[in-house]
Amino acid sequence: MKRRIFVKNSSLTALGVSAFGLMDSYSKSFKGGNMLKVNEQRVASRIAELAKFGMDDKGHGYRVAYTKGDIDGRAWFIGQLKRAGLDPIIDAAGNIIGKRKGKNQALKPIAFGSHIDMVPDGGNYDGPLGSISALEVIDVLNENKLLTEHPLEIIIFANEEGGTIGSMAMAGGLTKAGLQQKSQNGLTMADGIKAIGGNPDNIQSCIRKKGDIHAWLELHIEQGGILERENVQIGVVEGIVGIVHWEVTVEGFANHAGTTPMAMRQDALLASARVILAVNEVINSVKGNQVGTIGRIAATPNAYNVIPGKVVLGLEIRDLSADKIEILFREIEKRAAAIATESNTTIRFERQANASKPALTDKKLQETINTAAKALGFSTKFMQSGAGHDSQEIASIAPVAMIFVPSVGGISHSHKEFTRTVDMANGANVLLQTIMSIDKDKE
Amino acid sequence: MKRRIFVKNSSLTALGVSAFGLMDSYSKSFKGGNMLKVNEQRVASRIAELAKFGMDDKGHGYRVAYTKGDIDGRAWFIGQLKRAGLDPIIDAAGNIIGKRKGKNQALKPIAFGSHIDMVPDGGNYDGPLGSISALEVIDVLNENKLLTEHPLEIIIFANEEGGTIGSMAMAGGLTKAGLQQKSQNGLTMADGIKAIGGNPDNIQSCIRKKGDIHAWLELHIEQGGILERENVQIGVVEGIVGIVHWEVTVEGFANHAGTTPMAMRQDALLASARVILAVNEVINSVKGNQVGTIGRIAATPNAYNVIPGKVVLGLEIRDLSADKIEILFREIEKRAAAIATESNTTIRFERQANASKPALTDKKLQETINTAAKALGFSTKFMQSGAGHDSQEIASIAPVAMIFVPSVGGISHSHKEFTRTVDMANGANVLLQTIMSIDKDKE
Repeated sequence: MKRRIFVKNSSLTALGVSAFGLMDSYSKSFKGGNMLKVNEQRVASRIAELAKFGMDDKGHGYRVAYTKGDIDGRAWFIGQLKRAGLDPIIDAAGNIIGKRKGKNQALKPIAFGSHIDMVPDGGNYDGPLGSISALEVIDVLNENKLLTEHPLEIIIFANEEGGTIGSMAMAGGLTKAGLQQKSQNGLTMADGIKAIGGNPDNIQSCIRKKGDIHAWLELHIEQGGILERENVQIGVVEGIVGIVHWEVTVEGFANHAGTTPMAMRQDALLASARVILAVNEVINSVKGNQVGTIGRIAATPNAYNVIPGKVVLGLEIRDLSADKIEILFREIEKRAAAIATESNTTIRFERQANASKPALTDKKLQETINTAAKALGFSTKFMQSGAGHDSQEIASIAPVAMIFVPSVGGISHSHKEFTRTVDMANGANVLLQTIMSIDKDKE
Repeated sequence: MKRRIFVKNSSLTALGVSAFGLMDSYSKSFKGGNMLKVNEQRVASRIAELAKFGMDDKGHGYRVAYTKGDIDGRAWFIGQLKRAGLDPIIDAAGNIIGKRKGKNQALKPIAFGSHIDMVPDGGNYDGPLGSISALEVIDVLNENKLLTEHPLEIIIFANEEGGTIGSMAMAGGLTKAGLQQKSQNGLTMADGIKAIGGNPDNIQSCIRKKGDIHAWLELHIEQGGILERENVQIGVVEGIVGIVHWEVTVEGFANHAGTTPMAMRQDALLASARVILAVNEVINSVKGNQVGTIGRIAATPNAYNVIPGKVVLGLEIRDLSADKIEILFREIEKRAAAIATESNTTIRFERQANASKPALTDKKLQETINTAAKALGFSTKFMQSGAGHDSQEIASIAPVAMIFVPSVGGISHSHKEFTRTVDMANGANVLLQTIMSIDKDKE
């Protein structure tokens, strides 16, 4: 790969620092060719290096929070932070925090990062991209001997996939009951946190108050197919959707599938099929980015020769507006009531306790990201995040923003998850420039 | 209960036998008040007695073939046969056979009976009614010192609910592979047969050839709600439906339920819902008694927050005409192909190996039953059996017929299964008169 001498740019000059660095050939096409740039290959090779932790012989990952893969991956990451000259600590929730001094230590830190745990058989980009790009930002600053005004913090949140546990703790939302819940690997959150070096008995010590963090930035893969389909390079996240789950119980009457004439049936699965279609119709009946899914189904007794007497469905609705979720749900409920009457079944909805509220990102930070991306010559799109993220928790204590890059085929939570190296580097460059821009801002 | 002296009837006179017996007060209302009659209370109390075997404290039965409940129930039944003066044997398949001599031992036997095993938590009438009524017929003949022209045989088939195993063996259809299949209780059929005193190594010894049995009659509860709803006392079974099962696999693409816009989904459950509705529409689109059921469903990965990538359904179609089953299936297949195209999924049907062919009952025996029922003053209905029965197997080696009586609420394969005592007695009387009528027939 060709390399050429890096050229100082104006923002660095403004900081009074001479900057020299390396940049990759892809950046030739950049509008902002004279800016600080990340090392694309270093990002890609670190992504590959981290992916090995928890991976089996078939290339499937199991870096589930609190398991050996997670612990090994964290140890590697901590090593990287040390090599970058940061002195990482583990907070009470098991979050990894690496701090870099600013010129003005009285200023609140600009924090950025993501997570490195994954769902079972998960992908190598969901979390790692934001984590490794954070590391890359520090490396570029180091290589260019740049000191920001604000202190900087890399935060790698623990157990994001098990319910944004680390960020929830930092925002003060992890309760004693929450600590006793089981995580994916079977341990309680409390025992899992101990396993990664945290201290669940003193969980309050990790809490950050409102105003403690100047801004939180998270680069992440989109996990959807919108950016790729629309051929857009950078997604500027306007907010993270709220999520509500309902358990839907459809009760008919289990009877012999051979001896019960069609007209005499109370078929809970047939009624459920109508509910599934109704959910889809209602969600599609209004404009917007709302999504509604029936992802779970269980029929009883579930035999070829018995008419299903009972079916339990799992309904999920997500949107940036909590009100819209309620309006859509009420319409679904209305449609279900009609289906129940027509099919001689009963249908009841039980709202689950795990609902998460929509979290809006900071408007000014959105604009900063958009401006940085445009300056780098990238196309951008303002969009919502349909997935939950640590940023959702941190939004309650700090201004937050998220940068999305395309996921190939929109695939995520799968070993097939993939983001091209060029897109990873684009996102990391936007992250870098956004941090520099926030740091410059005297407001 | 009042009792009065039994009056000789002409058919008994024709047999040259004097008949005296007891009959119950209910029979006063009979048109055929001068015929032989069963003892209604004896039938009811034996039903209750047999029900105890395999029953738990909560009144739920588990007289599943080859289990202790089944073995105990069989021992009790064998005791009853001995008390009735029959000398019961266990054939190689574990079927219980009680023989009563006829005046003319050169004639082929008239056989009747049913089964006494049940599905888990099954009812106390499905099988027991035909078995205990067969015993009742012998008792009435004994009490009236009647000897039929034909030898008589009570046959209690083993493991009806596990796949008509005993009758299949008698008809020559139980293969070595079939003997190695697992039955409901986890044993192989071979080991189960051993547990009830059969001899799987010499299974051929129980085979009856075509012509070995003069006629086979089975009294059974309807297991559907038609007779009760139409207020008909006796069902004359025209045939036992054929049953075909298909495993239907719908494949879409599992993806994040938050980040995948509605328009970009390949939702296997949404497509399955359309298939479920299409099956119902196709089955209802033509006249007749055909039934079609999706009784099984399994979605993968089956999580609130993942769009189902794969759904496997169990489709069953039953009808008296094998051709009609094929025509209906082809229409379903056609509809599914359109759904697959529209939903960007693939849908494939895999026909299961356990298909059973429709079995028609003997036309002349149907008429004999109908005439006997009418002579007793009962309303009758010619109907199909939507459920499988041992009679289906025996139809390949002998003329068969079935008599149905109402099931309250059409409920079966449930501890809620119930048939009124008066209906049981009606059926037993029709069985008795049908046997007498067949025996008289010189053809």
